Amino acid sequence: MRLATLRDGTRGGCLVVVNRAGRLCARVPAVAATLQDALDDWARAEPALRSAAERLEKGELEGVPFDARSALAPLPRAYEWIDGSSYLNHVVLVRKARGAEPPETLESDPLVYQGGSGTLLGPRDPLILPDPSYGLDFESELAVVLGDVPRGTTAADAAGTMRLALLANDVTYRNLVPNELKKGFGFFVSKPSTAFSPFAVTLDELGTDFRDGRFYLTLRTTLNGAVAGDVETGPEMHFSFCDLVEHIAKTRSFTAGTVLGSGTVSNRDPARGVSCLAERRARETIELGAPVTPYLKLGDHVTIEAFDPSGRSPFGSIEQTVVAP
Amino acid sequence: MRLATLRDGTRGGCLVVVNRAGRLCARVPAVAATLQDALDDWARAEPALRSAAERLEKGELEGVPFDARSALAPLPRAYEWIDGSSYLNHVVLVRKARGAEPPETLESDPLVYQGGSGTLLGPRDPLILPDPSYGLDFESELAVVLGDVPRGTTAADAAGTMRLALLANDVTYRNLVPNELKKGFGFFVSKPSTAFSPFAVTLDELGTDFRDGRFYLTLRTTLNGAVAGDVETGPEMHFSFCDLVEHIAKTRSFTAGTVLGSGTVSNRDPARGVSCLAERRARETIELGAPVTPYLKLGDHVTIEAFDPSGRSPFGSIEQTVVAP
Repeated sequence: MRLATLRDGTRGGCLVVVNRAGRLCARVPAVAATLQDALDDWARAEPALRSAAERLEKGELEGVPFDARSALAPLPRAYEWIDGSSYLNHVVLVRKARGAEPPETLESDPLVYQGGSGTLLGPRDPLILPDPSYGLDFESELAVVLGDVPRGTTAADAAGTMRLALLANDVTYRNLVPNELKKGFGFFVSKPSTAFSPFAVTLDELGTDFRDGRFYLTLRTTLNGAVAGDVETGPEMHFSFCDLVEHIAKTRSFTAGTVLGSGTVSNRDPARGVSCLAERRARETIELGAPVTPYLKLGDHVTIEAFDPSGRSPFGSIEQTVVAP
Repeated sequence: MRLATLRDGTRGGCLVVVNRAGRLCARVPAVAATLQDALDDWARAEPALRSAAERLEKGELEGVPFDARSALAPLPRAYEWIDGSSYLNHVVLVRKARGAEPPETLESDPLVYQGGSGTLLGPRDPLILPDPSYGLDFESELAVVLGDVPRGTTAADAAGTMRLALLANDVTYRNLVPNELKKGFGFFVSKPSTAFSPFAVTLDELGTDFRDGRFYLTLRTTLNGAVAGDVETGPEMHFSFCDLVEHIAKTRSFTAGTVLGSGTVSNRDPARGVSCLAERRARETIELGAPVTPYLKLGDHVTIEAFDPSGRSPFGSIEQTVVAP
């Protein structure tokens, strides 16, 4: 089942079910007004939404054309946005380029940060660049929307807490990072609002392409029409989404609608390209002594889309253009 | 005007207006079901809530006894919880005790961290201690609930974005902090859910005790009945709430219902005591070479309450007992 949220002037937007082709959608006011409402009462809402989606597929429920330009993030504001850093190649590369060692616990203790979640961007929203010196970068990621997660949930029980999957562009102002890291409290102003794919899909939509808490897809990022990266999302995800859930639930519980990201998807094979410019710049720094690739500038256009082995795009695409405020 | 949220089995709880004595409250279903609903439509809701509060005061609206044990956090789940560290004495002391220098930009660049906001604790909820080695500590703070904050809001315009004030206990597992700081991504598992006072009050309730973005109150923390701290909240708040709003709004906007904390309230005068045990342990480490005061243990009881110069308690008290899961 594919779900999306349409702009309708309200803060939460309007929940719609979307057909398999991603072309038609229908409101489901009898089930839930917003995706958060559905997640809050998932046991009741899920079967009703699946039934609506089936009727839409069969033409028994009238659909209207789906236009990603009218889509908000599936959750335009979420109660939490937590982002991991599960692709260790990304951590190693980026730290190596700035002469820093990876954390000693790189392989045993997941890295996660708490992101801002009150103002999330839709799949066609522009990327704001208030000052070119900020060093704007994209970060192409996979994410899951969780149901209620009790404190102490283990990796073995974590799959049952995952409701939906989607894509994220966890935008970063790279040049604001070093000063924030120096202060020791993590990222804040270096992380503007994160953008999400138009569709949030139930995990059965992925079939065996989601297994052991990992997505086995390719994630393609383009910059101004050129492929920046076409990376495999499965094999190099060191900590699975199940591991990440166990980690975050160590000392507190989470409410339905919490969004959890994988971190920048990264492959060791340089031929696969990158899911963020920082990584390309890191390779350049290591090989040439200095980065050559600039960060994003006004007018640049970024797309992010995942494909399953048959070439199908489960989440639709994120397509964003860099603009001045 | 004083507002509170009562436990009623729903995720958002039930919004009530509370009388000046803090003894009677009344539901306001015609205005808003939850505090978040009211904040989402504040221009309409605020006058209607004020009118209900006035009628409650005059006995024209029937009230029921207010019991803090039935209260959830005013926002039981918020879209963001952002905590500053505006009392520089706290930063200097705590870092000195662990042999670290304060950040170079201590006085010019606010420290803030993004906290978890999906599961916030009510004023009588227990403090969970899964493992005594975690080093459980309280942190007594003031906080404001913001309305919509556009990106780029300046300190001069920030007061207009503040809707409500309340108290917070920003609980920390101190012994989980060093490992997280070493990883460089800020706090996560070292920060379990934060607790809040029963009442969230409009700023006019404070009169001139809220001015220039600072609260001029005393904040009293007790541990097992003994006063741990009785600190002044105004004079030593280096970055005001207006400064904090300008800082957080540098690169993104915030939705109504964002909660912003002051950081642990701290005075340079040791006779004032402390608003967290880490600070007392820091003083002991500096003076005696090692801390003497233990962190919280099972059965310990913490209270946090603010008083205005006339002895009135605007927010009610946070009263929490440490329990095993």
